[in-house]
Amino acid sequence: MENFNLVIFGATGDLTKRRLIPALYNLLKEKHLQNYLIVCIGRKEWNNEKFIKYLYEFINTNLKDFDQKTWNELKNKIYYYKTDFNDEKGMSGLKKYLEELENKHKIKHNRLYYMATMPENYEHIINSIKKNRLGEEKDGYKRLIIEKPFGYDIKTATKLNELITRSFREEQIYRIDHYLGKETVSNILLFRFTNTIFDPIWNNKYIDYAQIIVSESLGVENRGNYYDNSGIIRDMIQNHLMQILTLMTIDCPGKLEAESIRREKLEIIKAIDKKELEKNIVLGQYENYKKELNVDKNSITPTFAALKLNINNKRWKGVPFYLRTGKKLERKEAYVYIKFKDIRCFTDKRLPLKSNEIVIHIQPESDINIRFNTKKPGLKLDTQKVDLKFSYKNIFGYNTIEAYEKLFSEASEGDLSNFTSWEETKESWKVVDKLLNMKKLYEYKQNSNGPKEADELIRKDGREWFKNGV
Amino acid sequence: MENFNLVIFGATGDLTKRRLIPALYNLLKEKHLQNYLIVCIGRKEWNNEKFIKYLYEFINTNLKDFDQKTWNELKNKIYYYKTDFNDEKGMSGLKKYLEELENKHKIKHNRLYYMATMPENYEHIINSIKKNRLGEEKDGYKRLIIEKPFGYDIKTATKLNELITRSFREEQIYRIDHYLGKETVSNILLFRFTNTIFDPIWNNKYIDYAQIIVSESLGVENRGNYYDNSGIIRDMIQNHLMQILTLMTIDCPGKLEAESIRREKLEIIKAIDKKELEKNIVLGQYENYKKELNVDKNSITPTFAALKLNINNKRWKGVPFYLRTGKKLERKEAYVYIKFKDIRCFTDKRLPLKSNEIVIHIQPESDINIRFNTKKPGLKLDTQKVDLKFSYKNIFGYNTIEAYEKLFSEASEGDLSNFTSWEETKESWKVVDKLLNMKKLYEYKQNSNGPKEADELIRKDGREWFKNGV
Repeated sequence: MENFNLVIFGATGDLTKRRLIPALYNLLKEKHLQNYLIVCIGRKEWNNEKFIKYLYEFINTNLKDFDQKTWNELKNKIYYYKTDFNDEKGMSGLKKYLEELENKHKIKHNRLYYMATMPENYEHIINSIKKNRLGEEKDGYKRLIIEKPFGYDIKTATKLNELITRSFREEQIYRIDHYLGKETVSNILLFRFTNTIFDPIWNNKYIDYAQIIVSESLGVENRGNYYDNSGIIRDMIQNHLMQILTLMTIDCPGKLEAESIRREKLEIIKAIDKKELEKNIVLGQYENYKKELNVDKNSITPTFAALKLNINNKRWKGVPFYLRTGKKLERKEAYVYIKFKDIRCFTDKRLPLKSNEIVIHIQPESDINIRFNTKKPGLKLDTQKVDLKFSYKNIFGYNTIEAYEKLFSEASEGDLSNFTSWEETKESWKVVDKLLNMKKLYEYKQNSNGPKEADELIRKDGREWFKNGV
Repeated sequence: MENFNLVIFGATGDLTKRRLIPALYNLLKEKHLQNYLIVCIGRKEWNNEKFIKYLYEFINTNLKDFDQKTWNELKNKIYYYKTDFNDEKGMSGLKKYLEELENKHKIKHNRLYYMATMPENYEHIINSIKKNRLGEEKDGYKRLIIEKPFGYDIKTATKLNELITRSFREEQIYRIDHYLGKETVSNILLFRFTNTIFDPIWNNKYIDYAQIIVSESLGVENRGNYYDNSGIIRDMIQNHLMQILTLMTIDCPGKLEAESIRREKLEIIKAIDKKELEKNIVLGQYENYKKELNVDKNSITPTFAALKLNINNKRWKGVPFYLRTGKKLERKEAYVYIKFKDIRCFTDKRLPLKSNEIVIHIQPESDINIRFNTKKPGLKLDTQKVDLKFSYKNIFGYNTIEAYEKLFSEASEGDLSNFTSWEETKESWKVVDKLLNMKKLYEYKQNSNGPKEADELIRKDGREWFKNGV
């Protein structure tokens, strides 16, 4: 990885402690980091020492096989810079601070600006970056990493993009969706496009329908403030589920490069049928959500959504995609489920044929399961469904790379493949804005499967939600 | 299974002892036999008692978990009838003998005549069946089961068929190929035609080439007399390998019924390109074959054959099929190997892509292995070939049905699906006659991989013979 200075805005928040610093720690431990700096900016009246102690307490307790030597090396690269984002003096001092540190540590002025703070701070930060010319690339790259959700709806997203593009060109902007850093998610593309045997069947001629399911067992926990403003559609559908959907459905990008992949993804999102969307969505809120910390007592924020959508292109016309995601559900799991059409070769009453299925398990396990029919041994002509399962764990062991490590590494190397383009973000907001219009909300019990209306949504098509092992 | 009387011509030979009686014993043990008789005809001056003792000695020593109770039940249904096949008196007495036994045991006059003797006896037997009207079906079915090879070449096969059809209609004739009774072999059809995900890729658009490999480690053993007259082409290619080839390549039969399956198989054999055959075959004979018991000291009988053939139809034009079979080879194993074309979606120098493979393992194990590319976890964009293996043993246990049990059961029920039609036999002889014209013979060492010229045959196409685990 090239030399870089990771500049984190919002350094005292959960993301920095839980994801960003551990990702850097792991990259260092696995010898992927050479020359680097980590400058953390926060409002709290802390100093380096206190900030590092705060990080250490988390990392030491939460990381498997904590290695003191790695930490000692890492902590010498971490600096805390105290300022309010709207404090002009503090922000203008930042430029000098960064340059001095970079010079001291003898690294280029390559910077990854990481927006790890609340969206309401973005404007101050970006304006200050512009004012202090922190986005200029004459002496090293300057890249902006921005967390999801990008905006609040199509209007605010457009406004945010206008703000950002005053200081950064599109190629400098890394809209992060950590789902794209997951191994199983990025394998969807390789699974589809590096295998002659799967590509030909990946279309409406052979696929009956598909499901994308992301269930969480946790509720909003200590993020009530953020969540009650976002809800499930902004928090999960606009990004994670849309991303999985595009990876599952794009045409071959020709090259495995950001430009090609992003172009194909954009085509898919544009092709999503927006006409019938409102009819095909069920929203839910878990029981007692309104009693959560920092949640409005009259909140109508959905914590669950199930929907059906169609992609109106040659490959997918006629294949419904069922999406389902929610909090406080029975299980924490994420799946892509593909149900193939029945075989049209012959019908034989003697054979109880199950149609083929491919299940891509994203979490907690990472595996791919191909379900097909085989002859049942014996005198009778009979078939049995068998599962061929490929498990990441069994083949590669537990030692897989974490999403943020991967995305950091890619951002530092300038690979935009796994980051979302503005065009794509904009088009996905056009879809999501329709969903946000829905106000009807069904209550569901905690640890349940969501509201029964969601089951009805798919059952009226004669189908069921996928449940693993059932 | 319907009541039947199995009439075995050639009862003191190896086939009866090693295959037929054990198959009946197993069917009985597994409660598939209700009312039945077994009448065994041989030249030896034996009586029931001696014959049953002779069978018992083999079965008791060679069958796993021998069950005395089953044997006691079975042996009461076994009768030995002594006659020479050319002894008119003996053969004419047979009719009465069969009828009396059937009446005594209160079973219908349903008969399966099993030709378990040397082909030189067929004429006498069939003529006698005709003369004594043993083929007439007015009081129960009469079916003729005849072992491979059916004839010696197209001429003798035609003659044999003319002989048989004087007494039996085509629907009464069960040309047996025990390979069709193997679970993995009959699964080829179900694997192909009950799975939406495999059917679309089973053609020249996606398959690069295929191999059918049947290796034996044994030599001719005590069958020198038979073998030196037949050779590898009649013993293996005309039947087993041709059968596997047709099952692998036929179009969907529409119905899983004998008539449809046989029609499609016939179409394939007719479509085999006969023009270039002689150029694409390598024959071998193992070292010291000529010293085997009952083998001609100057024998030019091949014990090994490797060939390439093409099927000139829409589905398969351009896909070479490599066949390879021989005795005294390194390993006893049988495989169907399918190599898919490289992915045409994109090329990326970073990705070391292997093309997909499907390996159907017929023996000693029964399994299906799908080999595809998946993402290798880590920061680099990299793929790894993984094997998804479905093993009959793991799913169903060892308790699978043996080929002869299956074929008996089907013959008694009148299901011709796994028996070869005359049209198909005739057409396959047309192919095989071309191969029989080849006289050039390469010697190869025992326990080797056959003559090196066979490797050359495929290597000049830039390919290698499939070896499992390599």
